[in-house]
Amino acid sequence: MTALSQAQWEEWADFARSLAAAAGQTILPFFRQPGLIHNKQDGGFDPVTEADRSAEQVMRHMIEKAYPDHGITGEELPPKPAASEFVWILDPIDGTRSFICGMPTWTTLIALTHSGNAVLGVVNQPFVQEMFLGGPFGSWAERASARRRLEVRPAAELHDAILTTVAPEIYRTEKQKHVLRELRRRVRMTRFGGDAYFFAMLASGFVDIAMDAGLATYDVAALVPIIEGAGGIITTWNGSDATAGGDVIAAASPALHGSALEIIGSAPA
Amino acid sequence: MTALSQAQWEEWADFARSLAAAAGQTILPFFRQPGLIHNKQDGGFDPVTEADRSAEQVMRHMIEKAYPDHGITGEELPPKPAASEFVWILDPIDGTRSFICGMPTWTTLIALTHSGNAVLGVVNQPFVQEMFLGGPFGSWAERASARRRLEVRPAAELHDAILTTVAPEIYRTEKQKHVLRELRRRVRMTRFGGDAYFFAMLASGFVDIAMDAGLATYDVAALVPIIEGAGGIITTWNGSDATAGGDVIAAASPALHGSALEIIGSAPA
Repeated sequence: MTALSQAQWEEWADFARSLAAAAGQTILPFFRQPGLIHNKQDGGFDPVTEADRSAEQVMRHMIEKAYPDHGITGEELPPKPAASEFVWILDPIDGTRSFICGMPTWTTLIALTHSGNAVLGVVNQPFVQEMFLGGPFGSWAERASARRRLEVRPAAELHDAILTTVAPEIYRTEKQKHVLRELRRRVRMTRFGGDAYFFAMLASGFVDIAMDAGLATYDVAALVPIIEGAGGIITTWNGSDATAGGDVIAAASPALHGSALEIIGSAPA
Repeated sequence: MTALSQAQWEEWADFARSLAAAAGQTILPFFRQPGLIHNKQDGGFDPVTEADRSAEQVMRHMIEKAYPDHGITGEELPPKPAASEFVWILDPIDGTRSFICGMPTWTTLIALTHSGNAVLGVVNQPFVQEMFLGGPFGSWAERASARRRLEVRPAAELHDAILTTVAPEIYRTEKQKHVLRELRRRVRMTRFGGDAYFFAMLASGFVDIAMDAGLATYDVAALVPIIEGAGGIITTWNGSDATAGGDVIAAASPALHGSALEIIGSAPA
């Protein structure tokens, strides 16, 4: 990505803002409306709303028009292969459980990848009306006309850290359960319930470690540029690039990230 | 409360809106600002910000001016005895852990009690800019110029219910842990992380059971009129009035509430 100019990046960022705005306009009329929720057919409790599908469709049409050679990977619809090195990765409603509970903590996630590397990430919450946006030139929170540069906070020691993760239930294997239990035991405080919003709060300097298990690429690709653009570090539990998904851990500093990876590494397989 | 006129109630509601607005204006400049947080001296992790104290002071001054004979009970400052049957109960920042993590799910709680009965409740989130307000004449969500009547949703069976509670850590005794474990096992889905916001979502028809343990009166008094005004039921785990605090459970229907109390009653002491 050494060849990426800031002007080119700003063009994509503007386009991503317009995608997020269109998704928000599509989703909001469905938010806090009873009776629009159904379950996926796999038998689990993984609700998807009409809003989710409609918003992905809207964003896909915009991308196909503006960048016809770009690929598209979304949560709801089959992938569109790329005729270039660029792929957009879309999750119209990350945090569907928050969404169906009426909580304003679900978000729209948008990433642009170049040869598999996420170069632009957007986390947007249209009800709260705030957007987090990041890439190789930095990360920002945007709300109305205000724009604030994001920066992770000075590293806490592990015992003084705030750990966040969406829910205990996502830790399914013995190893995953061990990691959650051990990290919770070691940190100062653990908070549940935030989905991608927690990662935006890590980038904003209010959370020290954000962790999740079993993520898909559309759950995490947008978070990578935002965390890294704010000076944080995000990888899989193995320490490799998180863009493709998996068990993911983000931290405010390499030292804190290292402490967490050590605990993960010492967990029984 | 048979003598309470709606006109009198609306006067208090208008005043409570002005309290909430003043508290919000006081708190917001501190929200998402690093370095303003300290711990209470009891050794536990119970952060209180300058914002919390300042906002309670602002609300107290307003009450003392408007209703000099009303009592005041707040989280931060010593109680002011009442020279009448009326007491205001204030929690400027409910959800301090959400607050310090930067999450927009903390709220300002305001209740007015008459002879110990909560007759008016306000849950306000000034960053999101939405307010929930309830009493004997109904409950409403207010946002900008929009006002929406709140109503709990048709009762789910226990196995189909969504359960919410702030965090597993608040369940400390063996009985409390048993109750949380057993209810989580029986319901369809459990969500953590919402504080008072979850109770507002129960009143709004998106959550079926909202539970917490070890609440103070300022954590819960404001929730009682909002839940009841929306057609829900809220009591202590013993089935008595929740206004004074304790272990609290709210449900969308008496049947669901009964199922939950049965599980609570069967827990070992």
